[in-house]
Amino acid sequence: MTNKFDVLGIGNAIVDILINVEDDFLSDHEIPRGSMQLVDDETSSMLYSKLGAAIECSGGSAANTIAGLASLGSNVAYIGKIKDDQMGRVFDHDINSLGISFNTEKDMSGVPTARCLVMVSPDAERTMCTYLGACVNLMEKDIDPEVVASAAITYMEGYLWDPEHAKAAFRKAMTLAHNAGRKTSLSLSDSFCVGRYKKEFLHLAEHEIDILFANEEELLMLYDTRDITEAVKAVQQHCEVAAITRGAKGCTIVSADEIIDINGYHISNLVDTTGAGDLFAAGFLHGYSQSLDLRTCGRIGNLAASEVITHMGARPDVDLKQYLATNL
Amino acid sequence: MTNKFDVLGIGNAIVDILINVEDDFLSDHEIPRGSMQLVDDETSSMLYSKLGAAIECSGGSAANTIAGLASLGSNVAYIGKIKDDQMGRVFDHDINSLGISFNTEKDMSGVPTARCLVMVSPDAERTMCTYLGACVNLMEKDIDPEVVASAAITYMEGYLWDPEHAKAAFRKAMTLAHNAGRKTSLSLSDSFCVGRYKKEFLHLAEHEIDILFANEEELLMLYDTRDITEAVKAVQQHCEVAAITRGAKGCTIVSADEIIDINGYHISNLVDTTGAGDLFAAGFLHGYSQSLDLRTCGRIGNLAASEVITHMGARPDVDLKQYLATNL
Repeated sequence: MTNKFDVLGIGNAIVDILINVEDDFLSDHEIPRGSMQLVDDETSSMLYSKLGAAIECSGGSAANTIAGLASLGSNVAYIGKIKDDQMGRVFDHDINSLGISFNTEKDMSGVPTARCLVMVSPDAERTMCTYLGACVNLMEKDIDPEVVASAAITYMEGYLWDPEHAKAAFRKAMTLAHNAGRKTSLSLSDSFCVGRYKKEFLHLAEHEIDILFANEEELLMLYDTRDITEAVKAVQQHCEVAAITRGAKGCTIVSADEIIDINGYHISNLVDTTGAGDLFAAGFLHGYSQSLDLRTCGRIGNLAASEVITHMGARPDVDLKQYLATNL
Repeated sequence: MTNKFDVLGIGNAIVDILINVEDDFLSDHEIPRGSMQLVDDETSSMLYSKLGAAIECSGGSAANTIAGLASLGSNVAYIGKIKDDQMGRVFDHDINSLGISFNTEKDMSGVPTARCLVMVSPDAERTMCTYLGACVNLMEKDIDPEVVASAAITYMEGYLWDPEHAKAAFRKAMTLAHNAGRKTSLSLSDSFCVGRYKKEFLHLAEHEIDILFANEEELLMLYDTRDITEAVKAVQQHCEVAAITRGAKGCTIVSADEIIDINGYHISNLVDTTGAGDLFAAGFLHGYSQSLDLRTCGRIGNLAASEVITHMGARPDVDLKQYLATNL
């Protein structure tokens, strides 16, 4: 069977509001530094009103990964829920401008398109407060069986377990993908998110997910251990491949018969770590869907991640295809 | 009389949509490179749909100047018309977050908040297509006499002559300022804009404006000459002070008894020239409202302009007060 798409991404469709912040602001508001926290419309507005001037751009974890894949030259599709409002049209434009297939029905009324306050600390760490807005309306019916069946890999973010109905959509997509002989992939998203859904994520890792993305904290949280060697051994028995990101140190790729450590790229101008994990996944999946060896997949992941952290925002500022050709 | 505000700015309140573009796109659509062109909603949407992924941030020429003044530590106010929609709330938040007094009544219905497609060429030149939206509803009644009377300088953009009713607001503000013994200031905005309103702008320069801002092209257009020396002599007889920006070469400050050339700051990382003129005006007015000598005013203008062109967007990325202390 031919693949119409290399990767289909499913996630919370979000517009980011990027704001520089001092760490005091986070501690004063009891927001854990480096985390993603869910907030309601009121809290989001309250925090926003206290924060400085911002820039707005499209975000959403899986959407960032799909944008990265498009920039690398992969054929990609995306499923996520926006409202037909000004921010929704920003999201829609940016996805479409990259040649990404995006046909999820838009909400015409109800709550607004989701927004995320991305607060960037002086050391480039980002802390996020997300108001899910229209994302709560992503349903099973939004999963187009034809699109899932025609994508070599269906990639989903752990954050999808936050809106009430999206996990049904997630499960439907996973079943459709496997029934069509395709691969499934999950990003654990955030250690707090893993904490919220540990039992379910563990079940997914053990039985349903072929390619798992996690950072060290998330993996430790998943396997309820402080010993990374133990966590790596556990995931090795569960998933076909696990790609574990380790910040500036790079990544570790785990398969049934290999554990490969790959150094990160050195960068001199760290600005904003938003999107590092998302773009790592983009680079890795770009290589993986072309059947490149795992070390090369990991190196492409590291390289894509190293670009996105040199500027504000979670999507590449350059043509990643060219960037890869020059820098890999 | 004490000043509540150092500077009041009046202008078109706009959210910028910043997009990298190849020059071919501009020529294919017959858009003059480096210009500001007015477009309707339909044309704006058509161009946007053909352009790549963007970032959104607050703009508007006079608003950028006022934002720069706030960042420099001046006490400032702003008058401009937005709609109470998502983009309007972005503009409102960013202005308020800088401590700028902004109380213009918002439109609750009708056309959306103005937006400007800012297309940035590979050499950092910016070309703008503006849909004026709610700006057409700025009226005389929006000019608060108390605010004008309590501002040492009322600064207005030439672009205000584009929306139908705003010039009445402009004239009202000018009269109120002079009646209160205050100074008036005008930026000529854009050579095409000067072309549209040459006769009226000439009358303003001759009789109404104390402090004039222009680049060389705009000044030549105003005085209908290709000889800059001639244009400088003309403006010297009309305005108390004229500040003429000359791109990378810096600026020339013209008063009744002086013509001062001031070199620009050398920068190594030119990214986007959007806001250069606006931030020059901010720096100059910051010095002028503190009665600093004209050379220092020009140097502060050059410095503020040199910061804004090292990154995308028309507002400073750093605290300009600190930046000034370190770099002037």
